[in-house]
Amino acid sequence: MKNFKFKIVDSDKKTKARVGQFKTPHGIINTPVYMPVGTKASVKTLSPEELNDIGAEIILANTYHLYLRPGEKTIQKLGGLQKWTNWKKPMLTDSGGFQVFSLAQEKGFTKKGSKTLVKVKEDGVEFKSHLDGTTHFFTPEKAMKIQSDLGADIIMAFDECAPVHATKKYITEAMERTHRWAERCKKEHQKLQKNKKNKQALFPIIQGGIFDDLRTESAKFIAGLNLPGIAIGGLSVGESKEKMYHILDVINPYLPKNKPRYLMGVGSPDDILEAVSHGIDMFDCVMATRNARHGSFWTLNGRAHLANAGFKNDKNPLMKGCNCYTCKNFSTSYVRHLFIEQEMLGLRLLTIHNVHFLVDLMTKIRENIGKGKFEQFKKSFIKRFKNEK
Amino acid sequence: MKNFKFKIVDSDKKTKARVGQFKTPHGIINTPVYMPVGTKASVKTLSPEELNDIGAEIILANTYHLYLRPGEKTIQKLGGLQKWTNWKKPMLTDSGGFQVFSLAQEKGFTKKGSKTLVKVKEDGVEFKSHLDGTTHFFTPEKAMKIQSDLGADIIMAFDECAPVHATKKYITEAMERTHRWAERCKKEHQKLQKNKKNKQALFPIIQGGIFDDLRTESAKFIAGLNLPGIAIGGLSVGESKEKMYHILDVINPYLPKNKPRYLMGVGSPDDILEAVSHGIDMFDCVMATRNARHGSFWTLNGRAHLANAGFKNDKNPLMKGCNCYTCKNFSTSYVRHLFIEQEMLGLRLLTIHNVHFLVDLMTKIRENIGKGKFEQFKKSFIKRFKNEK
Repeated sequence: MKNFKFKIVDSDKKTKARVGQFKTPHGIINTPVYMPVGTKASVKTLSPEELNDIGAEIILANTYHLYLRPGEKTIQKLGGLQKWTNWKKPMLTDSGGFQVFSLAQEKGFTKKGSKTLVKVKEDGVEFKSHLDGTTHFFTPEKAMKIQSDLGADIIMAFDECAPVHATKKYITEAMERTHRWAERCKKEHQKLQKNKKNKQALFPIIQGGIFDDLRTESAKFIAGLNLPGIAIGGLSVGESKEKMYHILDVINPYLPKNKPRYLMGVGSPDDILEAVSHGIDMFDCVMATRNARHGSFWTLNGRAHLANAGFKNDKNPLMKGCNCYTCKNFSTSYVRHLFIEQEMLGLRLLTIHNVHFLVDLMTKIRENIGKGKFEQFKKSFIKRFKNEK
Repeated sequence: MKNFKFKIVDSDKKTKARVGQFKTPHGIINTPVYMPVGTKASVKTLSPEELNDIGAEIILANTYHLYLRPGEKTIQKLGGLQKWTNWKKPMLTDSGGFQVFSLAQEKGFTKKGSKTLVKVKEDGVEFKSHLDGTTHFFTPEKAMKIQSDLGADIIMAFDECAPVHATKKYITEAMERTHRWAERCKKEHQKLQKNKKNKQALFPIIQGGIFDDLRTESAKFIAGLNLPGIAIGGLSVGESKEKMYHILDVINPYLPKNKPRYLMGVGSPDDILEAVSHGIDMFDCVMATRNARHGSFWTLNGRAHLANAGFKNDKNPLMKGCNCYTCKNFSTSYVRHLFIEQEMLGLRLLTIHNVHFLVDLMTKIRENIGKGKFEQFKKSFIKRFKNEK
């Protein structure tokens, strides 16, 4: 597929970390990469220029939300996601699968309850909109069509992300269904691509909960689909961090080296460093933007919170030496004031800092892999970040 | 006063409109000017860079809010308002008087009620914080000291803005008190300026409700204080527009020509045009920012609202030919989507457009006065804006 090409530039000797370049129709993504999340086609509080200034190379949007409002046809009419949002670099859309399941759970409905919002069938999933209760049906084919209309560079296969506490029996069924759906997605995607000017890369998703055998089976199957990238879903959903890293170890031998690997929904600084050392190339997480809206921000010494009265008269930036717009232009005192007063500029300044923190971390990760110093960098970063003595 | 100098550059022949330049320690303000309002030291949703890009030349902050939180001493410690907010151009602070009275009224307390939040005495005003109910006492001297600590270029005398429906007797008393307070402000201000590196200009305020005789008396008294500028308060608070324009006519003969005149709290496009033709030089109003947060925006054809379903697939900018960041980069469809989804970027994009609309209107006003075409411009603008046939 000439529109998408993944090239490994550097490989770490001590760990599985690698530096890569993923060529897409909207530009090259340098991996390992952190992708800021723009659920409703807007990375909360930020303009495309700000994301660009921060150094973001690719952003995410959510199929489920955009399908419900304003509808993928509106976005298609307006020229697709990139033109509509004025974000000129690569974009990725998820398939809607995760949201269909997680928003139903958030609403407190269970699979056995009579008021269930979600019904899983072999053909697809029936669910009720969290906005107005209307009934909708997503199939793998429909998820492909919607994402084709939205027009992102990277699109995701429609999968079932089973709850971490489900039985092994159910997780097995969900995984097998995910595999059958991935095949249907591939088929439909190939059909849709034929008449398309802007090509899209489909990434299928490995599932299998926290079971070594299921994850191994899923990794083999998904790798066998021979698509331009591979995603790992269903992690960081309640299991321990050790379990997550273990699963990454288990599946690693079955992942093709020459394709980007995307660990879905993971994005704390320490998790990113560990996952990179396990050979992961792509990350997304709402933590950077969500923490900002709650007044917390990252520094090299860990997480801090603006509610802390000690910041009231603090002349220093949020983090000394930080090159983000916020730290270069404003004191912690002013940012705190804006946050306390619920001024929207405050949430934006915090978001800029947090997103920049992760984007900058990825740059340092790539540099250190290149210099053969990744493991050392990782250890000293985590030690300081977690305040370990 | 060498730090402040007002120069008239052009005068309209048919109306009282004039173009001026007001020199301040933080730069020159071209008048007539619109001053965006940053109540809590932030023009809602905007960064200082955005305000600068829009072309704003001076912004406002509110003494009452900043006194209560974070406290003027915090801002002084951090280097004063401009350094703290990173807004490098001129600033103006109000005296807190208007807020002390209006926030008490908003809370539903009356002067006669036992739960009154505000007690007016000869020495000053006792009021209860709208935040936590604590009792505070503002005097003219204290209003000067707080504004001296905040450090804006232009500061306002402490006045009493009587309700528009009060008796003439009460409005007379309030006006006379305002005059005595203005003298005390001037005295205290002169004392405070002695040891000050960054000089400030004090503007006293004309009051007198909607009574020609009181306004005349007040205009004479306030002009007699011989300070670098003059403000007109207590208008646009419930009286008719015709009454407001009439009062501007009544006081005009008593206003010194060579000083900037600031009409407080007025800022709809049509009111600005009318007031400019009555010789007003400075305006502030929250309408541009507040309307934005409610989804409405100005165009040359009047006010429009994004809730309008007709905008859903609208490829055009909010206003054709507009040079603001929003209109140059985004479709109405996308801005509407952001507003409907309560994405903060949407409120920012609308605020940018609305503030730019007024700043651009002021530029056109100045240009047309310079070309001797102001009255014609005013008439055709208002006709189109109000959809008059």
